[in-house]
Amino acid sequence: MRKVTFGGANSFDNYFARKDDAVDWLIWTDDVAPIMAEFWKSIDTIVMGRRTYEVALRMGAGGGAYPGMKNYVFSRTMKQSPKKKVKNLEFISEDAAEFVRKLKAEEGKDICVMGGGLLAKSLFEANLIDEIGFNIHPVLLGSGIPAFHEMDHQIDLELLECKTLKGGCVMVTYRVKPPGEKQKKKLTARSAKRSKNAKNGRKAKSVKTPTKRKVRKG
Amino acid sequence: MRKVTFGGANSFDNYFARKDDAVDWLIWTDDVAPIMAEFWKSIDTIVMGRRTYEVALRMGAGGGAYPGMKNYVFSRTMKQSPKKKVKNLEFISEDAAEFVRKLKAEEGKDICVMGGGLLAKSLFEANLIDEIGFNIHPVLLGSGIPAFHEMDHQIDLELLECKTLKGGCVMVTYRVKPPGEKQKKKLTARSAKRSKNAKNGRKAKSVKTPTKRKVRKG
Repeated sequence: MRKVTFGGANSFDNYFARKDDAVDWLIWTDDVAPIMAEFWKSIDTIVMGRRTYEVALRMGAGGGAYPGMKNYVFSRTMKQSPKKKVKNLEFISEDAAEFVRKLKAEEGKDICVMGGGLLAKSLFEANLIDEIGFNIHPVLLGSGIPAFHEMDHQIDLELLECKTLKGGCVMVTYRVKPPGEKQKKKLTARSAKRSKNAKNGRKAKSVKTPTKRKVRKG
Repeated sequence: MRKVTFGGANSFDNYFARKDDAVDWLIWTDDVAPIMAEFWKSIDTIVMGRRTYEVALRMGAGGGAYPGMKNYVFSRTMKQSPKKKVKNLEFISEDAAEFVRKLKAEEGKDICVMGGGLLAKSLFEANLIDEIGFNIHPVLLGSGIPAFHEMDHQIDLELLECKTLKGGCVMVTYRVKPPGEKQKKKLTARSAKRSKNAKNGRKAKSVKTPTKRKVRKG
């Protein structure tokens, strides 16, 4: 089964871009390139929403498609690119989750969910995203295009890697836990007690003393 | 001048708590306690909004105040605690930013902005927050009480520390750069060229080729 990855460079307050789609705040250091080159080698397919495609189209050459990749744009209204002869670009009007579910079952390299959070939201809700990777930038943009939108359920993650890059960026990679995945770790006596306490309303107790509240703060 | 710190434990999609204020998703590992004990020693004052106070009041003993600390609650409507005899608790009806500006100039240990993002927003906008510290939990809650709200300007940060904790948490601390702070680092020939390119519209160029777009993704 092909892996579906979502991510990008985000601000600490979780925006992918300013409201006008500008990414002038991105930090371009030489330690990012090899990480991304490695990632780029692992994928052959990019899926994006119509809005992300329009940004790519406006900002870049290549008719908004990533060369060397199979590009799918989900849109109910747009049937083809305004630019002519765009290679490896296909417009999909069917349900994005259904389409990606089929793509995952096909032969091929991994799949990357590009750009805005709305497509990611629908794929998260259908439990189709396997990994997320973010390069957290040292900035609060204050407003912009959000990386995450509200979702209908919680997604549990497992930290795979955390790496500090030049310029104060923090690169994190998480595996998305499938729904219902149980904790692999066996409960020790101590954690079993904690777990029991949690069920017995530890949460309410936890803010009674400053000692406990420290943990909430941390 | 006393330092003002904002932060807490957040989900990767930047919520402090679920919509019903629940923090049952917090991971309680023994490596958090010493970090928070150290932080707790550095402060003697807590400021919070009325909403955060009401949550603290509902969930904990002590009339919602942190024992051993001077507690200030900002509210135009609430003049006193519904609980009687709450020590070290004061309700402030004046503008939060003005009040915190005065607090910073007083003698004392550092000041902690507790809980929800709305008070933090007004203090960020008045450039009164000096440091942020977050314990990023490996979860996307999907909805909840946001740590950050939209702000009227961008806040630049400097990464001070990034540490992986047990359970897949990532603890990050940033210094808030004062507005207009110039980059300390001298421009090298290469970065000067980059900087020049940036001014000449590198942003638009940056997505033209897949090589460059990798960086956007990263």
